[in-house]
Amino acid sequence: MPTFGDVQAAAQRLRGIARRTPLLESEALNALAGGRVLLKAEPLQRTGSFKFRGAYNTISQIAATAVVAYSSGNHAQGVAAAARLLGKKATIVMPADAPAIKVESTRSHGAEIRLYDRARESREALGAEIAERSGAALIRPYDDRRIIAGQGTAGLELARQVEDQGGRLEAALIPCGGGGLIAGCSLALSTLCPGIEIHAVEPEAFDDTGRSLAAGRRLANRPGGQSICDALLVPTPGELTFEINRRLLAGALAVTDDDVRRAMSFAFRHLKLVVEPGGAVALAALLAGRFDARGRTVAIMLSGGNVDPAEFARALRPPGGS
Amino acid sequence: MPTFGDVQAAAQRLRGIARRTPLLESEALNALAGGRVLLKAEPLQRTGSFKFRGAYNTISQIAATAVVAYSSGNHAQGVAAAARLLGKKATIVMPADAPAIKVESTRSHGAEIRLYDRARESREALGAEIAERSGAALIRPYDDRRIIAGQGTAGLELARQVEDQGGRLEAALIPCGGGGLIAGCSLALSTLCPGIEIHAVEPEAFDDTGRSLAAGRRLANRPGGQSICDALLVPTPGELTFEINRRLLAGALAVTDDDVRRAMSFAFRHLKLVVEPGGAVALAALLAGRFDARGRTVAIMLSGGNVDPAEFARALRPPGGS
Repeated sequence: MPTFGDVQAAAQRLRGIARRTPLLESEALNALAGGRVLLKAEPLQRTGSFKFRGAYNTISQIAATAVVAYSSGNHAQGVAAAARLLGKKATIVMPADAPAIKVESTRSHGAEIRLYDRARESREALGAEIAERSGAALIRPYDDRRIIAGQGTAGLELARQVEDQGGRLEAALIPCGGGGLIAGCSLALSTLCPGIEIHAVEPEAFDDTGRSLAAGRRLANRPGGQSICDALLVPTPGELTFEINRRLLAGALAVTDDDVRRAMSFAFRHLKLVVEPGGAVALAALLAGRFDARGRTVAIMLSGGNVDPAEFARALRPPGGS
Repeated sequence: MPTFGDVQAAAQRLRGIARRTPLLESEALNALAGGRVLLKAEPLQRTGSFKFRGAYNTISQIAATAVVAYSSGNHAQGVAAAARLLGKKATIVMPADAPAIKVESTRSHGAEIRLYDRARESREALGAEIAERSGAALIRPYDDRRIIAGQGTAGLELARQVEDQGGRLEAALIPCGGGGLIAGCSLALSTLCPGIEIHAVEPEAFDDTGRSLAAGRRLANRPGGQSICDALLVPTPGELTFEINRRLLAGALAVTDDDVRRAMSFAFRHLKLVVEPGGAVALAALLAGRFDARGRTVAIMLSGGNVDPAEFARALRPPGGS
């Protein structure tokens, strides 16, 4: 199992390479929430999401000269950019219906793309086949000690930035798909901010972590669920990530697509930041009143900003505005 | 005339109050430009633009308990927010056709709004009338020593951030309306980055500073010009600002509305930042090939992000994309 020490070691590897993304604050949001809300702006990270952190931390520790990954997009971009910086060849297995901006961007980071049909092909099988044929190391999206530690550096920075501002963090809301980001951040935050209350935030139809926490064991999402949060659509919590999250999380919150669009619109208007649907769920939970921030200092993780223009424009149209 | 010392004094007044906005960098932009491009992200400043800097620096130095300003929007928001922080009453005279987001936001900062008809009323007369009736101090948008010094703190930070990253700035492109931002930044940059080449960037139909620099005296814009850059539409360069700019600028560049929309779209895709039309002109000049950045380290000032959703969505639609 990864530890806080692994997160610290990851931060050393990422020093001067990953960006120390800013912590944003909005008077309008503080007034709405009735507390102090600090937002970690990972859309400003290299490749537009936190995923670069875990990818670089992992790839910098492997001997293979090639890597392969399957991903709906943000992990793909992170792996592609990290591999290029480290002089390794990257092949990315992506669903043919992934947002165009993510496919193009992954290609622009120098990776080879292998598109697959979600309905007829298995990305796991394709990835394993490429790994076997070319000797490439498979870079998992979340269920890996090195990935979790790398993502945790976002939480480590967050804790230190709040401290630098003289604040004391009482709660954190963090987007959750496979759970790598929140697991890593929880390792850092629970150590550096004793007593902190950490909540996962998920799309309503993909509330596997919330139901798993309640049940005390890993449960899968019901089939057929829909969500605009393409970055968070995984079938079930990871094994490693869930072991950490069951121990360190206070609970989980769920949001609707409309909640998410309102949060994207709010970030546009008040933060001047482009946030993708999956990256906006924690802000969405706060704005929708799912979490009571009154009188508290609360961190919101904005985890990524890779969204197609048409999807973004849709979020800006009334009545999505706020 | 304001000096570099005034900019340093303004930075002291703004310490812990204005945000130290981040310097962004994009591999995609570096590759396109063939050099190193560093972007100062003033949309992340309080009130969504650099205007807060000059407003706070000025209002913190006046004795009156009320202030009045006329502005198309960003100066209005800066004055409103600074006045509130300093416990003074603000009245803002705004054109009735200003972007709705700017009117609403100014009101949300606690200011009283007086809308006027651009065609039938004089904002100067209205402002003077309010000042006389209420004893309020008029806060000018750019032609004031304290305003120029305050805006210059953006350039001071920029120079220090580039230095912190081990870079040496060779050129800077800065949006120019009345010229307060570029005049203040030039005081800082010409002192801290000897030999730097500083260019103003203006909308094509509002190239008064460019033509004035060429003529050696202040020239007005031709009547009837149109531009989506609402933040940059002034009739003529300021007196004080032009005195500084004629001494310190290398020249001026002009961009079209299409150039500006492409830059806004680029910032959306690659920087994940919301930039308003007037705030995007310097990036637009670079992307449109008006400035040769090959082999150089160049700063781009992104000066604000207050744009109506519909205008922003228009910039994201093809063929505005890049």
